[in-house]
Parts: sequence; C-alpha cells; structure tokens
Amino acid sequence: MLCGGVGAARLLKGLVASMPAADITAIVNVGDDMNLHGLHISPDLDTIVYTLADQVSVDRGWGLEGETWQAMEMVGRYGGEDWFGLGDRDLGTHLFRTNELAQGKTLAEITQVIAGVWDLELQISPVTNDRLRTMVTIADGSELSFQQYFVGHSHDVSVTSIRFDGATAARPAPGVLEAIRTADRIVVAPSNPAVSIDPILAVPGVLEALSLRRSSVIAVSPIIGGKALKGPADRLMTELGHEASAVGVARWYSRFAAKLVIDSVDHQLASAIETVGVDPIVTETIMAKPGVSKSLSDLLLSLPI
Amino acid sequence: MLCGGVGAARLLKGLVASMPAADITAIVNVGDDMNLHGLHISPDLDTIVYTLADQVSVDRGWGLEGETWQAMEMVGRYGGEDWFGLGDRDLGTHLFRTNELAQGKTLAEITQVIAGVWDLELQISPVTNDRLRTMVTIADGSELSFQQYFVGHSHDVSVTSIRFDGATAARPAPGVLEAIRTADRIVVAPSNPAVSIDPILAVPGVLEALSLRRSSVIAVSPIIGGKALKGPADRLMTELGHEASAVGVARWYSRFAAKLVIDSVDHQLASAIETVGVDPIVTETIMAKPGVSKSLSDLLLSLPI
Repeated sequence: MLCGGVGAARLLKGLVASMPAADITAIVNVGDDMNLHGLHISPDLDTIVYTLADQVSVDRGWGLEGETWQAMEMVGRYGGEDWFGLGDRDLGTHLFRTNELAQGKTLAEITQVIAGVWDLELQISPVTNDRLRTMVTIADGSELSFQQYFVGHSHDVSVTSIRFDGATAARPAPGVLEAIRTADRIVVAPSNPAVSIDPILAVPGVLEALSLRRSSVIAVSPIIGGKALKGPADRLMTELGHEASAVGVARWYSRFAAKLVIDSVDHQLASAIETVGVDPIVTETIMAKPGVSKSLSDLLLSLPI
Repeated sequence: MLCGGVGAARLLKGLVASMPAADITAIVNVGDDMNLHGLHISPDLDTIVYTLADQVSVDRGWGLEGETWQAMEMVGRYGGEDWFGLGDRDLGTHLFRTNELAQGKTLAEITQVIAGVWDLELQISPVTNDRLRTMVTIADGSELSFQQYFVGHSHDVSVTSIRFDGATAARPAPGVLEAIRTADRIVVAPSNPAVSIDPILAVPGVLEALSLRRSSVIAVSPIIGGKALKGPADRLMTELGHEASAVGVARWYSRFAAKLVIDSVDHQLASAIETVGVDPIVTETIMAKPGVSKSLSDLLLSLPI
C-alpha cells in the first residue's frame, strides 16, 4: 500500500484483520517529515505505527493514549516554537529516531525497530531514506514547508504550486521497488494525492515501477462527494487545477491505477471515471464507521485483477 | 561567581538573599554540556536556573517540581539511549535551546532569555559560547565524555587524565572577562575543581584575568573532612595527584585565589592552608542545612579584601 497518514493508517488497520500482516508492505510518504528543535519528525510513519499499535487515543481520536504535554508547555513558556504540538510520549519516538539517525542508522531501519517494539508484523518503510521535503508555494509567493502550511497556517491559505525538495536525488529505500514489482496487488490509500501520494511518486523509479503494475493497482478515492474527509485534499486539487472529485482523482491516478474505489455517495460518477480509462468500484469507504475498514479491505483483496 | 552545578546553585540562592541580584554575575561551566538525541543539554546552566527559579523538587531534592518521564519511557521501550534521564519538563528547555541555537542565537543569549522567563535578575552566562567538552580518560585507556563518565559509569571508574576539548579555540562569552575585571569581589563556588572550575579556567583569558584579581578572589572549598559532599571531587583530586583536602584545594587555587573558605570540621587545616599562601576562613559551609547558604553568602560579602 502506498500510504500517507490517517486514511492509510485506518485502511491498514482493516487490512491486517483481513490478511496475514507479514504479507503487507506499507510504503510511506516522508514529504511531511521535518526537523524541529533538532529532532527528526516523521508524521506519517508515526501515525501509521501508532494507529496499528492501538496507541492512538480513542477518546480524542488523535494523539497518543495517555499523552502529556509538559515539554511543549515549557517551550511555550520560553516563547519558543510551539506551533507544532509534540506530546511527551511522542517526543520519545522522535528522540530515539534522531539519536539512531545520528548513529548512522537509516530511517527504514529505525522504523523497522519501532514497528517491532510495537509487535507489528507488517513491513512499514519510508519510500526513501533520503531527504525529501514537500514545499508549498502560497498565493503571496512565499514558499513554506509542508508543516508550516498544514499546521502553522492550518492549511487556510491558497496554494499555487508544490514541489518535492530533494526528490530527484532521492533513492527508493531498500525493498520499495521490489515490493511494487512483486506484490500480488497494490493499493493506493485514500490519502491526499497532492501531498501524500505525489511525493512517493516523485522518488525516481517509483512511478515507473507502479505504471508497469497498472493492472494490479487499486486506488481508493480520498475525495467523497467532492470533499476530503479530513485535511485540504479537495481544496489543493482545485488550486492545482484538478477537479475536486473522484473523477479528478481517477484522472490524476489513471497513469498507474487501473481501478478506483469510490464512495457510494459518488455512484453517479462511475461512468465519468470509466471515461478516463479507470474502472470504478462503488462501496462504502468512510472508515470512521466501525467495520468499514475491514469490509473495504476485504473488497480490495477480492477484486479480480 | 565561577560556578559548576549544585553547590554553586545553592550558594547563589543565598547570595540573591544577601545582595541585589542584578549585581551578581554567574559564570558557568559548560564542560558538562552534551548533545544527546540531537538536543543541546547544558546541565550546569540548567541546575542554576532551575534552583534559583525554585523549580527543583523539594521532596526529591533533584529534578524539576512536577516532572514526568514519559519521553524517556518511550526511548527505553525502543531500546534507545536512556542512561541519561531527561524529564519531560526539562526536555522543553533542551528543545527550546536547541532550536534557538539552530536559529543562530548564542548559548549566552538563550540562557538570558530562559533566566528572564523565570524572573531571575542576576546575570547567568556560560563561560563561553563555543564548544568546550570535558573529556575523561579512564584506567583502561579509553576516553569518555564527562556525562558518560559521570552518569553512564556513575563516576565509579579510575581517572588518569582530563582534558577540555575545544578549550584552546574557545573565546570567553561577551561580558565574562569584563565581569572578572570589574567585580567588587569574585567567588569560586564550592564546585568540583577538576571538572567544574578547571574547564572555566581553560577558556583562554579567564585564568589570566582571575589571577590579576587574586586579592579579590575568595574560593569556597568543595572538600569537607577530606570528602566531597556530592560527586567525585575527592576521588578525582586523588587520582589526578592532588591531596583530597581543603589544603589540596588551596594549593590548586593558590595561583588565583587569596582566600579559601573551609568548613569548621577542617579548622585544624588552617595553618597548612596559610603555608601555601592562601588565607583560610573557617565557617559552617554545608548548605544542606537551612540558613547556611545565606550566612555563608553574608560572610563572603563581608570579608575584607
């Protein structure tokens, strides 16, 4: 599965209930990664690990179970950069990751250790061990890091373009291309096409490998009834000249995905999706409801490819 | 005052009760500083700030009031480096400092901001903004960072030599030499001579400036009855070829200190101290007892110089 953060994590949660976890490889976006306070932070990798490890707070729906915020309270007291909230437990992950990177371990190796500690059996890998940063140019012409845009500005500014700094020099992490080449089927998670999936495709070799497997690639639309369930995917699609709809997603992904799973509310878009050369599959996709993640996973595994 | 950590902090606590805080300058050791998990940690600066800010846990006698340990619990869970315990509140200080350093601020500037946030009116400055690290060679020939020796090995190994990495290239922080040149009197805190005071003196210009003020320099012996109240000062003195006694301290400091305050239990050493050219002053110096820090401060301010 090609993965961003929350949507991908929820779908993976269903997938590990539908098939042997050890047979799953999650290839994860690192364009949201950042260095803050000297620490290397990998939001999408952590969202996936924490979700699968049942560490996400059920009450709050985000952040870690039993999380506290003492470190950031101190940073705020000093007038420091506290726009990106880091819980104390979460900080432990970033401290460990940063220290291991400084010792020469790769992000993929460190992610494997972290996933192992949480007893996760699936393979979770960053798409690349190299530096790749999603950079967002906004209407006033200034360029922001993804997190400055997403968290700092609450993604409430107009975007004119996006680029992936470091992408041309980045190499796929070990096993990434192999997984794409050899998987029985490949799922593109219902993640943001512009800032979660595109940075994965920007790593040289990934789009090519994926395109060669086009008939085995099933994408899940993150746009439902013209809206993203969470985050700015719909708005970004419009701002970047795409149609903010399942049809827009189909057109975006048609190079490398033969099938697109769309939500029941969008059933009337099926024929338009066929028109752009993608097979539409209509089903319930909103994974906030119990059981949908599992039933969606079962469907993804049962589709003839 | 030339300062290490705990002993200096306790004496400063008395001093701010005995004189206007704004007239005090604390020049602090940075040889214990380290980079861990990507964070810049300055143990002596923090001990002084936290103590003066009344943030040290009264019950435990160390660490911060209301401290929690969630981040390090996670680091430990991952099998990471958790030999140096960092509380969650404490981490906030290190996050802030590291981020500000990355923005180009100096350690002295950052310390001033932190002290200001805690409403401290005295000047607290690292002896240098440059990198200076106390390195300890132990009996098996290996060289450890100060914290690896002190915390990692619980200072329970024999030391053959100490050097201050970076010292020859380090420049005194702004105001440090000026403070030494112009102070009415200069106190050397009851800190470890080998690893708290010596690294301060290793910064080019400091020992020279101090020596020129010798008649105004009053040191307080950290050795009482042949023992350090805390830490390995006595053992280190012996291992490095000094006598672990107030006389040994007097001999060590005689180049730059005209007076040495020694504890009442050591009154019989007064004449031996005179013999090495230092004036002994005998009084109660164990600041664990209430009121001693203030009475010692009053004495330091009243001695004729």
